[in-house]
Amino acid sequence: MRATARASRHLVPTTWWGRVQWRVNEFAGASPSRFALTVFTTLILVFTLLFTLPVSSASSSTTPLADALFTAVSVICVTGLSTVDMAEHWSGFGHVIVYLGVQIGGIGVLTLASILGMVISRRLGLRAKLIAASDSNPLRAHAGPVAEGQAIRLGEIGSLLRTVALSAVIIELVVAFMIFPRMLAHGFSLYDSSLDSLYYSAMAFTNTGFTPNEAGLTPFATDYVFLTALMIGVIAGAIGFPVIYAVAQNLRRTSRRPFWTLHVKLTMVTFALLLVAGWILYLILEGGNPRTLEDDGPGNAVFQSLFMSVMARSGGFSVLDINHLHSSSLLVTDMLMFVGGGSASTAGGIKVTTLAVLFLAALAEARGVESMEAFRRRIPTDVLRVAVSVVLWGATIVAASTVTVLAITKDTLDHALFDVISAFATCGLSTGLTQHAPTPAVYVLAVTMFLGRVGTVTLAAALAQSQRGQYYQHPEERPIVG
Amino acid sequence: MRATARASRHLVPTTWWGRVQWRVNEFAGASPSRFALTVFTTLILVFTLLFTLPVSSASSSTTPLADALFTAVSVICVTGLSTVDMAEHWSGFGHVIVYLGVQIGGIGVLTLASILGMVISRRLGLRAKLIAASDSNPLRAHAGPVAEGQAIRLGEIGSLLRTVALSAVIIELVVAFMIFPRMLAHGFSLYDSSLDSLYYSAMAFTNTGFTPNEAGLTPFATDYVFLTALMIGVIAGAIGFPVIYAVAQNLRRTSRRPFWTLHVKLTMVTFALLLVAGWILYLILEGGNPRTLEDDGPGNAVFQSLFMSVMARSGGFSVLDINHLHSSSLLVTDMLMFVGGGSASTAGGIKVTTLAVLFLAALAEARGVESMEAFRRRIPTDVLRVAVSVVLWGATIVAASTVTVLAITKDTLDHALFDVISAFATCGLSTGLTQHAPTPAVYVLAVTMFLGRVGTVTLAAALAQSQRGQYYQHPEERPIVG
Ligand SMILES: [K+]
Ligand SMILES: [K+]
Repeated sequence: MRATARASRHLVPTTWWGRVQWRVNEFAGASPSRFALTVFTTLILVFTLLFTLPVSSASSSTTPLADALFTAVSVICVTGLSTVDMAEHWSGFGHVIVYLGVQIGGIGVLTLASILGMVISRRLGLRAKLIAASDSNPLRAHAGPVAEGQAIRLGEIGSLLRTVALSAVIIELVVAFMIFPRMLAHGFSLYDSSLDSLYYSAMAFTNTGFTPNEAGLTPFATDYVFLTALMIGVIAGAIGFPVIYAVAQNLRRTSRRPFWTLHVKLTMVTFALLLVAGWILYLILEGGNPRTLEDDGPGNAVFQSLFMSVMARSGGFSVLDINHLHSSSLLVTDMLMFVGGGSASTAGGIKVTTLAVLFLAALAEARGVESMEAFRRRIPTDVLRVAVSVVLWGATIVAASTVTVLAITKDTLDHALFDVISAFATCGLSTGLTQHAPTPAVYVLAVTMFLGRVGTVTLAAALAQSQRGQYYQHPEERPIVG
Repeated sequence: MRATARASRHLVPTTWWGRVQWRVNEFAGASPSRFALTVFTTLILVFTLLFTLPVSSASSSTTPLADALFTAVSVICVTGLSTVDMAEHWSGFGHVIVYLGVQIGGIGVLTLASILGMVISRRLGLRAKLIAASDSNPLRAHAGPVAEGQAIRLGEIGSLLRTVALSAVIIELVVAFMIFPRMLAHGFSLYDSSLDSLYYSAMAFTNTGFTPNEAGLTPFATDYVFLTALMIGVIAGAIGFPVIYAVAQNLRRTSRRPFWTLHVKLTMVTFALLLVAGWILYLILEGGNPRTLEDDGPGNAVFQSLFMSVMARSGGFSVLDINHLHSSSLLVTDMLMFVGGGSASTAGGIKVTTLAVLFLAALAEARGVESMEAFRRRIPTDVLRVAVSVVLWGATIVAASTVTVLAITKDTLDHALFDVISAFATCGLSTGLTQHAPTPAVYVLAVTMFLGRVGTVTLAAALAQSQRGQYYQHPEERPIVG
């Protein structure tokens, strides 16, 4: 490992293991987005195979391909939607596969997205790069675009993976330790409490949202310690690895003034604003709904609104029956799910910074200044174009998928839009449409999950990598918009 | 008039009429967006008053304020939504007011939007302006930002209004001449045919979509000449004045090779693409629906799909009962309505060029080139920011309005989203929600129409006017998006 890490980029190691590592690093470094696609597709195929095996199902029978594939995508993409009863359908072995799948999927996406994030943040301004690349630059020996700045350094993936996995283990253990005594208190056995608290904490941190016990969250519906533990796990997973890393760094050096990058500040502020907005909207819209929040008193309503606001962002746990929510709350949830969590996180959606960049662009335009600004930093224009691309990508997938699901199921827009956005943003909340969907719709939703998770994460990196020189310019002309 | 037009900007005319014109020109030139807001608000208040009068209603009673205000907004914003039965509720005098209202609203918005478009297209690149404004520029006598380039020249509004009105009259007469013999053929009297064909053609060109006769389009459901005439009128109104003007200019000089600006090309191509996309989608989604297209044969299905695709963009006429469409077609309609027609048109929505600019930005990003390009022209980056602002504005209004309407009416998302987007984009198609909405929802929808029409048209111009110099720059930093 160390030998490989120290090896120069152009010296192929001599041991076979060294060569494998070298090749993986080369591939990941040269095209991280294609690497991410390959990793996710392979994982899904392997897990589909595992889920079809009779040993995985409680009834020892072969699970149909559509259900096995859907479960594999849902597990690896840490979505939490299901076409079968997750607590009852799978055997003990099946549950272990689910557990391992969400850990691999969750930690994998954190690592891959962090790599892709590095690629993007290392991207030079195009202007600077063009100057560096231009033939008139005496410092340059050969022509063509400069791409070295974008490559990931050898050994970085391994060390990143270790840091991510360590963070995940620490956070999941903390959450499990909060949950464990509550499960004992609710009368679960020591064995069940141990396993289920680990399962719950993994489902929280990876933002998956499956429940191991048949009754789901019903026994814990008013156990505020249990639900708070879930919220902590979900937020830690959804806020994104760059934020976790920055918090850890700042905790370590307590003497100095904390240092936050623009990305971390933007993520934390937007994340918090959306959390509070959802909280208030649920309280207003559902406060008087006897089927959801009205009956158990205002204190419970305030807590459950906060819980819903957290879970709508990608957590996927729900105490209330989604079907009992008003249409207005479903629409609010749709919007929160679509935005999702932070970049390089286990959460889905277009990501909070994407939304923030769009608003900063509108703000800059309204103020009449040339550059987008936040926290005394200028944000380059190409970031806006990546943000626009991500939103168009998301809107197109959701629109196409919703129209298709509506045409197949003939269900209501309420339900179809909700489950499609939940799939796209890998949130996992459901109106029940997914569970009862005909097979073609199941495949459409599986594709939606895959495109939502893998597509959104890799799109930005793929775009950032596609820079090339532009050696001529067309004359400028201005269309009218709006 | 001519004296005023010739007068220098700083010489106040001496006649009272000249002074009025001068002041209007000064106001409109200095802040066209505030001018547009003032004109629309005044018109709506005057027409609200007229509609409340007993003489306007068929029963000679006072129309309730909510209905009068809603009708006034719907007429002046050429939306075509209604809370009362438009054919039966109003007296002959009321119908004349409706007719005048849509003509004033339609021609008014064409003129105002064209002025605003001129403001935008005259906007200098900010960089060029800053150089011009900088103190190091020896050509500049005094400091401060340069705003002269954005001002509208004296006399331009009058000549623009004449050109717009002339175009409207010609197009409406052509459409009326097509409709008139068809109405006679359907057994309408000479009197009714004359008035109704003028009414229909005005409703088509202004993209309003009200019908004068009680049965509406039912008698003409398979009269393809009649419906084609409506489509011609609607498309002429919805494509936008810059395109009409360019077509007219190119028709005049037949000898030369036709000249199209980037805006005209971008509008025509995007408009046509969306038209065809809607056509195909309706044919696929409704082709097998016995309540809409299945029963009258494939030929009729092909024609009615095209008719729906045209009307969904802002026309608002409908042969089919919107309630009988599948949810999937309703969602397709939502998207088509939201985009709407061309800039500086009687159509609503965010406008086709806005959508096109977003896609061009994503395309530029995917190709890895610095500037958005179309038809061998570069589109400046600030156009993208205006486009993002317009879309955010639209999405925010639609989201807030839909959540509010859902909370008030407890109707389905299908219906609420459809009628809200129809109101925002001044399309006028309805699932019936508007007609039966309680008074608070009526006011919400009226505000939605106003913000959708006046807001979207003026927003871009207001943004374009808000340029100011930036004399310091923060350091650059790059957040991760997606
Ligand atoms: K999830
Ligand atoms: K209309």
